[in-house]
Amino acid sequence: MIIVMHKAATQSQVNHVVARVQQMGCQAFCSQGIEATVIGINNHQHQLNQTVIENLPGVARLMPVSKPYKLASRDFHPADTLISIGDLTIGGNQLTVIGGPCAVEDREQILTTAHAVKAAGAHILRGGAYKPRSSPYAFQGLGEAGLELLALAREETGLPIITEVLDPETVPLVRAYADILQIGARNMQNYSLLHAVGESQHPVLLKRSMMATVEEFLMAAEYILSHGNHQVILCERGIRTYETATRNTFDINAIPVLKEHTHLPVFADPSHATGKRSLVAAIAKAAVAAGADGLAIEVHPQPDAALADGAQSLTPPQFSDLMQQVRRLAVVMQKEIMAPSDSCEPGTF
Amino acid sequence: MIIVMHKAATQSQVNHVVARVQQMGCQAFCSQGIEATVIGINNHQHQLNQTVIENLPGVARLMPVSKPYKLASRDFHPADTLISIGDLTIGGNQLTVIGGPCAVEDREQILTTAHAVKAAGAHILRGGAYKPRSSPYAFQGLGEAGLELLALAREETGLPIITEVLDPETVPLVRAYADILQIGARNMQNYSLLHAVGESQHPVLLKRSMMATVEEFLMAAEYILSHGNHQVILCERGIRTYETATRNTFDINAIPVLKEHTHLPVFADPSHATGKRSLVAAIAKAAVAAGADGLAIEVHPQPDAALADGAQSLTPPQFSDLMQQVRRLAVVMQKEIMAPSDSCEPGTF
Amino acid sequence: MIIVMHKAATQSQVNHVVARVQQMGCQAFCSQGIEATVIGINNHQHQLNQTVIENLPGVARLMPVSKPYKLASRDFHPADTLISIGDLTIGGNQLTVIGGPCAVEDREQILTTAHAVKAAGAHILRGGAYKPRSSPYAFQGLGEAGLELLALAREETGLPIITEVLDPETVPLVRAYADILQIGARNMQNYSLLHAVGESQHPVLLKRSMMATVEEFLMAAEYILSHGNHQVILCERGIRTYETATRNTFDINAIPVLKEHTHLPVFADPSHATGKRSLVAAIAKAAVAAGADGLAIEVHPQPDAALADGAQSLTPPQFSDLMQQVRRLAVVMQKEIMAPSDSCEPGTF
Amino acid sequence: MIIVMHKAATQSQVNHVVARVQQMGCQAFCSQGIEATVIGINNHQHQLNQTVIENLPGVARLMPVSKPYKLASRDFHPADTLISIGDLTIGGNQLTVIGGPCAVEDREQILTTAHAVKAAGAHILRGGAYKPRSSPYAFQGLGEAGLELLALAREETGLPIITEVLDPETVPLVRAYADILQIGARNMQNYSLLHAVGESQHPVLLKRSMMATVEEFLMAAEYILSHGNHQVILCERGIRTYETATRNTFDINAIPVLKEHTHLPVFADPSHATGKRSLVAAIAKAAVAAGADGLAIEVHPQPDAALADGAQSLTPPQFSDLMQQVRRLAVVMQKEIMAPSDSCEPGTF
Repeated sequence: MIIVMHKAATQSQVNHVVARVQQMGCQAFCSQGIEATVIGINNHQHQLNQTVIENLPGVARLMPVSKPYKLASRDFHPADTLISIGDLTIGGNQLTVIGGPCAVEDREQILTTAHAVKAAGAHILRGGAYKPRSSPYAFQGLGEAGLELLALAREETGLPIITEVLDPETVPLVRAYADILQIGARNMQNYSLLHAVGESQHPVLLKRSMMATVEEFLMAAEYILSHGNHQVILCERGIRTYETATRNTFDINAIPVLKEHTHLPVFADPSHATGKRSLVAAIAKAAVAAGADGLAIEVHPQPDAALADGAQSLTPPQFSDLMQQVRRLAVVMQKEIMAPSDSCEPGTF
Repeated sequence: MIIVMHKAATQSQVNHVVARVQQMGCQAFCSQGIEATVIGINNHQHQLNQTVIENLPGVARLMPVSKPYKLASRDFHPADTLISIGDLTIGGNQLTVIGGPCAVEDREQILTTAHAVKAAGAHILRGGAYKPRSSPYAFQGLGEAGLELLALAREETGLPIITEVLDPETVPLVRAYADILQIGARNMQNYSLLHAVGESQHPVLLKRSMMATVEEFLMAAEYILSHGNHQVILCERGIRTYETATRNTFDINAIPVLKEHTHLPVFADPSHATGKRSLVAAIAKAAVAAGADGLAIEVHPQPDAALADGAQSLTPPQFSDLMQQVRRLAVVMQKEIMAPSDSCEPGTF
Repeated sequence: MIIVMHKAATQSQVNHVVARVQQMGCQAFCSQGIEATVIGINNHQHQLNQTVIENLPGVARLMPVSKPYKLASRDFHPADTLISIGDLTIGGNQLTVIGGPCAVEDREQILTTAHAVKAAGAHILRGGAYKPRSSPYAFQGLGEAGLELLALAREETGLPIITEVLDPETVPLVRAYADILQIGARNMQNYSLLHAVGESQHPVLLKRSMMATVEEFLMAAEYILSHGNHQVILCERGIRTYETATRNTFDINAIPVLKEHTHLPVFADPSHATGKRSLVAAIAKAAVAAGADGLAIEVHPQPDAALADGAQSLTPPQFSDLMQQVRRLAVVMQKEIMAPSDSCEPGTF
Repeated sequence: MIIVMHKAATQSQVNHVVARVQQMGCQAFCSQGIEATVIGINNHQHQLNQTVIENLPGVARLMPVSKPYKLASRDFHPADTLISIGDLTIGGNQLTVIGGPCAVEDREQILTTAHAVKAAGAHILRGGAYKPRSSPYAFQGLGEAGLELLALAREETGLPIITEVLDPETVPLVRAYADILQIGARNMQNYSLLHAVGESQHPVLLKRSMMATVEEFLMAAEYILSHGNHQVILCERGIRTYETATRNTFDINAIPVLKEHTHLPVFADPSHATGKRSLVAAIAKAAVAAGADGLAIEVHPQPDAALADGAQSLTPPQFSDLMQQVRRLAVVMQKEIMAPSDSCEPGTF
């Protein structure tokens, strides 16, 4: 932390600031320049009350030096975090693809999709049982019946499953079924939920809020990590901007930025990022080329009849075609992508 | 709902769309123009699966005609909603002021502030017992001990109290203490929580998310209203934009827009809207001049020592000075503002 | 300017940075903290090449201490700038209102509007002769014929006139007719144009770009001021955000922020800020309550038939009604607003 | 164009709207639904005064059906536009790379860079002679001396040159030196300048404004095309959002969106998109994977000493390494990338 004093601050104001900083148990390092006096602070134990300091006479402003997150930072953990789900490894030089519908609708829909995405080479099956919807009048998901159908699809295909959890109370139930818990974008700063999945000690995929900065995204991951759960996958899914040509603006910059700052695997969701089927393949490939560790893609056997997000879902043939392109790209990017045949056998979960 | 067909759509594609719309139980009204054929739809019972329609051959796009919210709309309920808290009325021609600290810190802090804001003419006392913080390492609030201190402050001053609730489980506890439940900006789309406060049948102040559109804000209110709880106050507190000169960008336009579209009372929070003490009074006055029904203002006896949001908190004398300006403004705006002496007596809650 | 070194920077890296800074003719002040070493720089003559420094080994980042603008700053010129246009004074405790159509369309339209806004109490007449339009196929303004009609309206009513200038070549022509040159939002960073109006030594109203930060807005003003033209009025007209309920998001915070940082008069344009007639009065009043020195409001005798911006133009009776409200508000805000009868006589310009 | 009437609009209001539309020379097609009456309009000759219609009694709102641009649209010109610069072809299945410094600084800097980018395989040399700078106190470029140095670099390397033009007056001079005229992001809506480069009949690279929608970007291109100049290259360079981790947010979605809507070549500028050297390669590759027709990359022999944009400039070895990765990626994307040896010979321009 650095304190910048006003140009016109007196020596006695500087001395007073230094004294207050020391009272709070921090060390102060004073540097008197021509433009302004600057005071460096050692604030390792977070004892500094910034508001007090900001409002002392003569203080112009405070500027942070260290990052506010620790456990999520590469400074703390330089090597890539690897997450194991059965035989599958996420992170490092692996490229992992999640496929499946926005929402589990019925037995036939989820089983058809599960077999299709497995055949195309996906590694994980997605599907929502609890759906956050902006209208109280819209389809809210099948609930536990949806979880049971996902478990059935895993049994039939051997694909691990990921599904969203909406509130702390439901965490134990969803954890009992799912291999990975998903935190949706709207819940990225639902701290009670982050606390609960942190304590679950279960793999978590955390989606970036459409309004969060990269730093806030990492702080949300820090909430989970701070409860001892280190199996966190980050997922960029587009942010809200003034542009209305697409559902969201995919923040492709965030992928290399996150890879620089954190050891956690970074996935991309080109379906929500664009909201439009015809754009999904281009953005999926862009994400891989930018260094993403994985993709989450919406696939539906009949997008026209989907209860949610049909406009952005690929058909199984479109998904299969994309998987072939992604495999060619993985070679150029020096990433390994587990082949369909290597994939987890039925019944291993 | 209106369906716009592609310029090159064939007559048989148009016929197919009309047939599918009718299969879904809706009526279709076809209009063949030169630029494009347009099909109007009667979708009163929400039977239309928009995704199916959007993806039929020949369809260019769908355009909504009606608003997606009903209960929150002035179309449904033209007169202003009035909310009664003891002797206090919120909404209509009343101007209501909430004052108090960001967080309840200790007995002396909250009692001092409560007496000060009451003396200055505030009508409601605010104070957080459960704090949503972006860092897991920051002060998270006193919890139930904070609720008890708020109740004590109400007993001493007669001011009704408002405090934030963070998750569905805590709603019954907070409801037992607070006169108004606050939903914070980060939880505006936490549907489990909206459901729980909807069922509480207790007055709710809903803050706009920093990324929500006005329509999404009204849809969040609709979630609460749809559970039969009609005592909802909306609060604009600034949105996230590219501008970094202030903590948020206060969306002053939203105030007259909301007053046009909804019958619910509309408050403003100039403290979070600016993040800076020296700007609070200007924005508070602007909100009243734009037609706000109330203000929520952070006040702290020693902002320099505040555990949260000190930089944006007014001192009691600053708050008292602002209240005098607000009272003069209320006259010009033809609003009534309950005088300090009229205010709720000790023990009446 | 402050240089923050990496945590792991060596002493020889620190020494190298200090040596480079001194080679550039600046003084360096070194402070070795526990978290990081910090080097303060005196960069009065702008000799420091920041990019060089940023990329030296061991440098984490640079942080500015001073503001990048000088002439526009209250540090440089603490008292409010007053601008005289004939008998009219802009700035200080004066509240000034500009009224008129978006575009000059014909003789009758501009004369009718001029008489109407004068009767209602406006101080300055606006009207575009050169219109920047996003489509090459839209009405581009009457050009010099429009300027002549504006001059005729001034002759008839005595109101000074303001009109937009689009490129450096047209500055002398527009200057010959107009009392105030307007720089539109899209040209806020058209540096050739800023240079030209700077050299014109004529009063300028500079509109904030819909994407500019407050700091960039002040830097654009600095361009004009740096050519010796100190008669600059700033005008906030709304910024671009994700919100689509209104044409722009009026940044009301910018008004008190600008008043803190600069001595130049600050106006507000509630017509462009909202894009909707029914919202204009609320935002006009909010701007005055927030401390604006003036308003620019679109008025058209028949908004339904306007060639541009009809949807946001007030009718003369609506404008007259708003002026009465603004006058009552001016009293509360302790601003003087020149009465219609005091206003500049015909022929004095 | 579609007119949506209010739910409560009377038949005589509908008839009145139809009559006014017909008076304006357009055809009206009326459709009476249950939710609302909708009127379709044929507005081929742009005779419709939308503001008049919007304000007629009973009208709820207008909704456009056709795109506002014509010449830039794939509807008008389905095949990709190819632009020839000497032996070089831009667009179609060609991948083209522009490399060079932000600003031309001196003879040695530009010649060194030109030889380096040519050796690495770049096809075009960039360098600014006229620089738009947000501060009036910053380096503004060498002017015509810079153009002469660029021409010298072309003579020595055979690389065509691109450079920015800032105002209409300078277009003839810059056109006399440059193979491609660049319009910078801040000037994307400088209509006088668009007009001038349109009339120049010279190839133009148009950068997207940091605040422009995709539609506004295409409208700006339409301005140039409407003056008969069809040699326009679009360049996405990042938009302004709330995110501060990078200089801009690169709108990767815009690449496939533009490729769908327009026949013009689409380039990407990963240097401005990120503002940070370490992110440039990831975003360059992402742009190619998303379908970009070209890249514009800042290269400087000594970024640490650059007069502008040093922090985002690659060194020649970094650029050479990126070119190798881009060539491998081009194979996967089925794009041809002209080999260094094929490149335009010295003296051919």
